[in-house]
Amino acid sequence: MKNSLSVFLLAAFFCATAELHAQGQTPDELMLRKIYDMALTNGKAYDWLDHLSNEIGGRLSGSLEAEKAVQYTKEVMQEIGLDSVWLQPVMVPKWTRGVPEYSYIETAPGISSVVNVCALGGSISTPDGGLKAEVIEVKGIEELEALGREAIEGKIVFFNRPMQANLIHTFEAYGGCVDQRYSGAKEAAKYGAVGVVVRSMNLRQDDLPHTGAMSYDDLPPNKRIPACAISTNDANYLSTALKLKPDLLFYFNQTCRVFPDVQSYNVIGEIRGSEFPNNYMVVGGHLDSWDLGDGSHDDGAGCVQSIEVLRLLKKMNYKPRHSIRVVMFMNEENGLRGGRKYAEEAQIKKENHVFALESDSGGFTPRGFSIDADTDNMAQIQSWVSLFKPYLIHYFEPGGSGADIGPLKKEGMVLAGLRPDSQRYFDHHHASNDTFDAVNKRELELGAATMTSLIYLMDKYGTKTEYTSIPK
Amino acid sequence: MKNSLSVFLLAAFFCATAELHAQGQTPDELMLRKIYDMALTNGKAYDWLDHLSNEIGGRLSGSLEAEKAVQYTKEVMQEIGLDSVWLQPVMVPKWTRGVPEYSYIETAPGISSVVNVCALGGSISTPDGGLKAEVIEVKGIEELEALGREAIEGKIVFFNRPMQANLIHTFEAYGGCVDQRYSGAKEAAKYGAVGVVVRSMNLRQDDLPHTGAMSYDDLPPNKRIPACAISTNDANYLSTALKLKPDLLFYFNQTCRVFPDVQSYNVIGEIRGSEFPNNYMVVGGHLDSWDLGDGSHDDGAGCVQSIEVLRLLKKMNYKPRHSIRVVMFMNEENGLRGGRKYAEEAQIKKENHVFALESDSGGFTPRGFSIDADTDNMAQIQSWVSLFKPYLIHYFEPGGSGADIGPLKKEGMVLAGLRPDSQRYFDHHHASNDTFDAVNKRELELGAATMTSLIYLMDKYGTKTEYTSIPK
Repeated sequence: MKNSLSVFLLAAFFCATAELHAQGQTPDELMLRKIYDMALTNGKAYDWLDHLSNEIGGRLSGSLEAEKAVQYTKEVMQEIGLDSVWLQPVMVPKWTRGVPEYSYIETAPGISSVVNVCALGGSISTPDGGLKAEVIEVKGIEELEALGREAIEGKIVFFNRPMQANLIHTFEAYGGCVDQRYSGAKEAAKYGAVGVVVRSMNLRQDDLPHTGAMSYDDLPPNKRIPACAISTNDANYLSTALKLKPDLLFYFNQTCRVFPDVQSYNVIGEIRGSEFPNNYMVVGGHLDSWDLGDGSHDDGAGCVQSIEVLRLLKKMNYKPRHSIRVVMFMNEENGLRGGRKYAEEAQIKKENHVFALESDSGGFTPRGFSIDADTDNMAQIQSWVSLFKPYLIHYFEPGGSGADIGPLKKEGMVLAGLRPDSQRYFDHHHASNDTFDAVNKRELELGAATMTSLIYLMDKYGTKTEYTSIPK
Repeated sequence: MKNSLSVFLLAAFFCATAELHAQGQTPDELMLRKIYDMALTNGKAYDWLDHLSNEIGGRLSGSLEAEKAVQYTKEVMQEIGLDSVWLQPVMVPKWTRGVPEYSYIETAPGISSVVNVCALGGSISTPDGGLKAEVIEVKGIEELEALGREAIEGKIVFFNRPMQANLIHTFEAYGGCVDQRYSGAKEAAKYGAVGVVVRSMNLRQDDLPHTGAMSYDDLPPNKRIPACAISTNDANYLSTALKLKPDLLFYFNQTCRVFPDVQSYNVIGEIRGSEFPNNYMVVGGHLDSWDLGDGSHDDGAGCVQSIEVLRLLKKMNYKPRHSIRVVMFMNEENGLRGGRKYAEEAQIKKENHVFALESDSGGFTPRGFSIDADTDNMAQIQSWVSLFKPYLIHYFEPGGSGADIGPLKKEGMVLAGLRPDSQRYFDHHHASNDTFDAVNKRELELGAATMTSLIYLMDKYGTKTEYTSIPK
């Protein structure tokens, strides 16, 4: 594409369409046009993300980088002139990866191949000098019981269920495997396994291991076993090697540590509402990230988009009826402490939250929202679908919103999550290639504009439930 | 994203939705599900594109690579067992870039900065040793007349109108500037300009010049002037430098040549129709590309997706009612000879083409189709919208189709173009980064499945016009 003559025809068609749009627009249509125009021609989200990603980097809870990000986003919120900006203290876990992990498959004494692994977040270290053992491959936790202690004891359990490629929503494919990563070590330990290696949650074949949270739950410390993720290429290699040589040995070494909880913060900014200052609408993302990449998609994108929502409203001199808050939640990845703390304080202070929107699915082209609301509120949101059509925003379906805003949920409240195109998300998720270069400026800005548009409409029309649910 | 507990909830929601879908599906719903499943779990398009891009490379008309691509795609079509596969001879222009271009801005004798340029396709070379002259910046062809010969004569005209960032359809933004590239040299030459430099058609700020077709039309050879594209970063730099130093000199050297036309081919494969073998449905892309990258998005993607359509139909043992052809059109980029030749021969042989679909807008996540059809056919296609909803395909709007299938257009015929997400397309279009690594396997496969689904529905239900329009 594109022979020039046909482009002229195409352009003529588009221009005709654009002109039609300019005539007889409603105030809401004009407002959305203004929002998208500003986001695409004068957006700040991409520059802020550049700083978060390239000047600060990966922001694991409890790290120096996470604290730099707290200071930086607080400064940005102050610069854009919000009515108030503050830090909300929250204690967060501190887990460190230690020196780079090292791993190999040994098929015979002295014959070994290095493979790519990384410790799962929250895992203990291997014994000094590393762990070497035979491997038993399973496709999921449910196979452990049938195998029993005899088959598992003293071995490393290799969880190798891949993400299901034919699911259009890649988050669904993720949901179908993530129990291996989150609970695999805890469950395998019960049968006497000495370690766990989990296939990376990645729909691509490549060499990058993907980290992510795991939990030992209430397993006593002396029963805990180390767990790592292996790249999809090396998972296939290990699986093939096991077929040829079932008694091969797998070695991995990781030096991760858990420290006592440390002080951190949610970062909050607010524009005070003109009519309903005590009814709150929240937009946010999580400021912490994993440590392998710089957390550009997960969730630097959601953070800068959320601040951009308030900047755009201010820049347009829009005076919201409700109090609108932007929140940078701390510690979504390995604790959700920030989300829980924010909801707790809202409850204690009897702040009436009526709507919350999270962006935590990457900075890709927005397709719409998944919405957690009752019938009346859902109907109101779906009545706005045609307003979004010129921007190719078409997805307004019931569904989950975001982990950080989940704890705010109460009857009558509306929650929503931005839904960007998800096809590339798990190529980068929790891996060393979740980096700034993988974010497209326009896609990021379109997401910010789409979020701003929904916040504007929710603020203008209110939720269908809020005025009867103000706390006494 | 994503705290594991919330992922479990999300997954539970999605699984519930998926189960609902599995019950009581119509045959068309089941067929589309099967098409998408096969494309995503057993697709071949990505491997074929790997070969086209990485084993063959950029396929400029008349080049050895273009001929290798003809042979390769012919072999692929034969391997998948089409009823017939043949080459359709077509003479194509042969233009060569020559040695790498070189360019600098000279602000004072001996003080110069190198900038990134590339010759436009079809441009003549600069004089031996290059061309150096003062520069006059304009924002479009329409400014030339007002400036007049006095201001332009002896100078290099710098066309610097950027793509408009606030347009959601990036092809619209392209259509708004491409006249500078296509006709800038011809128009500037009329006022005595000695050369032309055009801002690259790129929505990003970066260092890559983007080539593309230009034409001197009927300008006599001795009036023709060389034309190059400059990267967006260097276009801004040149514009700023001109404000500070209006009499700066711009130098560029390029050694491109035009040779006599050479023999090439369209590659055509066919599954013979069981009921209406003389009514043809065509799916295709263009096999030629520019030479700077490997043409993965433009239009290797469209080529392999088109072959995949026929492979998927064969693999499912679908027996089409109409004859379905896949066509690899040659020379879309700088001549459209293949598209014209195919239409000419169809006319001579009185082949009744009832539907044609082109993919030539990149291998990104498909959003739908732009459709060139009368009211009845448009209504029929729009009645299928709900079938596509599970695959997030939502765009079914009137519009242009594709340059190669355009010449086939006749009354009653339906044309359609695949419309992928367009936000990243012009980051790569005609530049050295239109390469395989910029294509996501799933996005490419989703496009192929979406095209196959439309071909299946068009074949099953026919166009609303075809049975009354069989040539006598």
